[in-house]
Amino acid sequence: MTNFRSTKILITGGLGFIGSNLGIRLVELGAEVTLVDSLIPEYGGNLWNVETIRKDVRINISDVRDEHSMKYLVQGQDYLFNLAGQTSHLDSMINPHPDLEINARAQLFILEACRKYNPDIKIVFASTRQIYGKPQYLPVDERHPLYPVDVNGINKLAGEWYHIVYNNVHGIRTSVLRLTNTYGPRMRVKDARQTFLGVWIRRIIEGTPFQIYGDGKQVRDFNYVDDVVEAFLLLAESEDANGEIYNLGADDPISLKATADLMIAINNGGTYEMTPFPEGRKSIDIGDYYGDYRKIRSRQGWKPLIPLEEGLNRTLDYFSRHKTHYWENDHGV
Amino acid sequence: MTNFRSTKILITGGLGFIGSNLGIRLVELGAEVTLVDSLIPEYGGNLWNVETIRKDVRINISDVRDEHSMKYLVQGQDYLFNLAGQTSHLDSMINPHPDLEINARAQLFILEACRKYNPDIKIVFASTRQIYGKPQYLPVDERHPLYPVDVNGINKLAGEWYHIVYNNVHGIRTSVLRLTNTYGPRMRVKDARQTFLGVWIRRIIEGTPFQIYGDGKQVRDFNYVDDVVEAFLLLAESEDANGEIYNLGADDPISLKATADLMIAINNGGTYEMTPFPEGRKSIDIGDYYGDYRKIRSRQGWKPLIPLEEGLNRTLDYFSRHKTHYWENDHGV
Repeated sequence: MTNFRSTKILITGGLGFIGSNLGIRLVELGAEVTLVDSLIPEYGGNLWNVETIRKDVRINISDVRDEHSMKYLVQGQDYLFNLAGQTSHLDSMINPHPDLEINARAQLFILEACRKYNPDIKIVFASTRQIYGKPQYLPVDERHPLYPVDVNGINKLAGEWYHIVYNNVHGIRTSVLRLTNTYGPRMRVKDARQTFLGVWIRRIIEGTPFQIYGDGKQVRDFNYVDDVVEAFLLLAESEDANGEIYNLGADDPISLKATADLMIAINNGGTYEMTPFPEGRKSIDIGDYYGDYRKIRSRQGWKPLIPLEEGLNRTLDYFSRHKTHYWENDHGV
Repeated sequence: MTNFRSTKILITGGLGFIGSNLGIRLVELGAEVTLVDSLIPEYGGNLWNVETIRKDVRINISDVRDEHSMKYLVQGQDYLFNLAGQTSHLDSMINPHPDLEINARAQLFILEACRKYNPDIKIVFASTRQIYGKPQYLPVDERHPLYPVDVNGINKLAGEWYHIVYNNVHGIRTSVLRLTNTYGPRMRVKDARQTFLGVWIRRIIEGTPFQIYGDGKQVRDFNYVDDVVEAFLLLAESEDANGEIYNLGADDPISLKATADLMIAINNGGTYEMTPFPEGRKSIDIGDYYGDYRKIRSRQGWKPLIPLEEGLNRTLDYFSRHKTHYWENDHGV
């Protein structure tokens, strides 16, 4: 993976969880990286995420809904890793418009900006397994019907498909990754807005109990962030991947309860409570999910390398050392 | 079908092709009808469409993007027939934002207005076969993968799914009709912006040649507007239909060339030219399409009653008599 040396890279959501890890990796590879982030407090951006590369990157604070900013920033870039998004399913049901503005409308701004000002750019878009809805079969492959169960899923679906249509009709090269549960250093752990796993990590380190909703038997697959970063880089470099959609996934799907037990074992301590789904969450829960990632494995040579135990170990270690930057300066959630 | 007597009805796109025919039928059935339309010149609204019921309905000129107008208008209604839309595939590729605003964003405004101010309303939403993209098999049933080939298809898909999610999560009763090619009196015939069939009708009546793109072998299914109106009414009344999506379709799929020949035979005259697809149209053409409508037939008792020949006859007759209101006062296209 040396092809990124001296390439110009734009990452939207670049101060967020996956964006910052991707930025760090690209700086290692010698790329010239611009990170765009809105730093909206409820979302995933955190300047501390890029502390180690602060002097090596250009940081541009702006929102993907800011059409004029995007129009300028896409110019001259070789690659766009398009990761900015509203990720809370629950928020999208309470107030659907910001979700639409960010996950759908802004994506059209970005694609139109590329079409008009930088049609040779290659884009990799971060999509989500959420658009499959409640699985009709397992593991879920890319041909599974799309059946989003909440407004967030619908808008992510639209954002994803704009990318595919701009590839097929306008010839802007785009590839799509449908992410499953990604975890690791720099994830948002402050509260449960983005993922339950984040707040579990926080609670375990704080020494307070965390909640498992339902019976804890729901199965999930988890990818460590370094593996996900590798997938983004592979798709960026691959001409075969243009116009294509790829699932990620893991070899070891696991129940929520078993995940909790594993975390507590790694941490040598921690407790949880089983509680019923809170109001509003049950109706958008998708039940068991794990993805079939054979397409990206066979065509792009990707597979997850970091086992869950190792990944959780690194993650707990990271947040134990840096917790002051992730929640200790807030005033409770 | 007497259940609509004295019910309060709101129709968005109410001065357009299907909306006006639906309004006329509902007035016959004794309903209190409000027609909302933006009368944007490039779209389908035309005051002449409701000439015969002008004194029997309330006409409200406003755009579905006008959040405040929608908030007011949904209040107190028993049924909403939600038909307003941007329907040009080509326009959506040239300037995608108006398409997103109308077909996706405004739909969320409308659904949020219902959730907050009239949660007991029943909504029937006009969707489109376009969201299936190029058929992977024929006839296309409701389980066919969604694979939109243009921005319009993506936004219609989002608009449709908001309706389903609001039914499933918020309990606002909604049903969806995926329309195929609808034709009949009051359709937009001025140009090819909405459907090729419209401009063919105009040209035949004018006595000038019309164009068939490609080899003319592309197969389509056509529904006469009275049959489509009946389907909207059936779904409005049916509690079984809540949260459900239904295709329409016809028993007699037919090639474009055979359709042209049939029209010329009915009209006792007319000519056409075979021409290559113009720039921009080929890449979003979907090839052959015809729908499987067995779901709505078996569960709701709907089937198309008007054969194509009879429907085209009525349509040509209507536009021959009323052409001054559909194109003769414009100054060419």
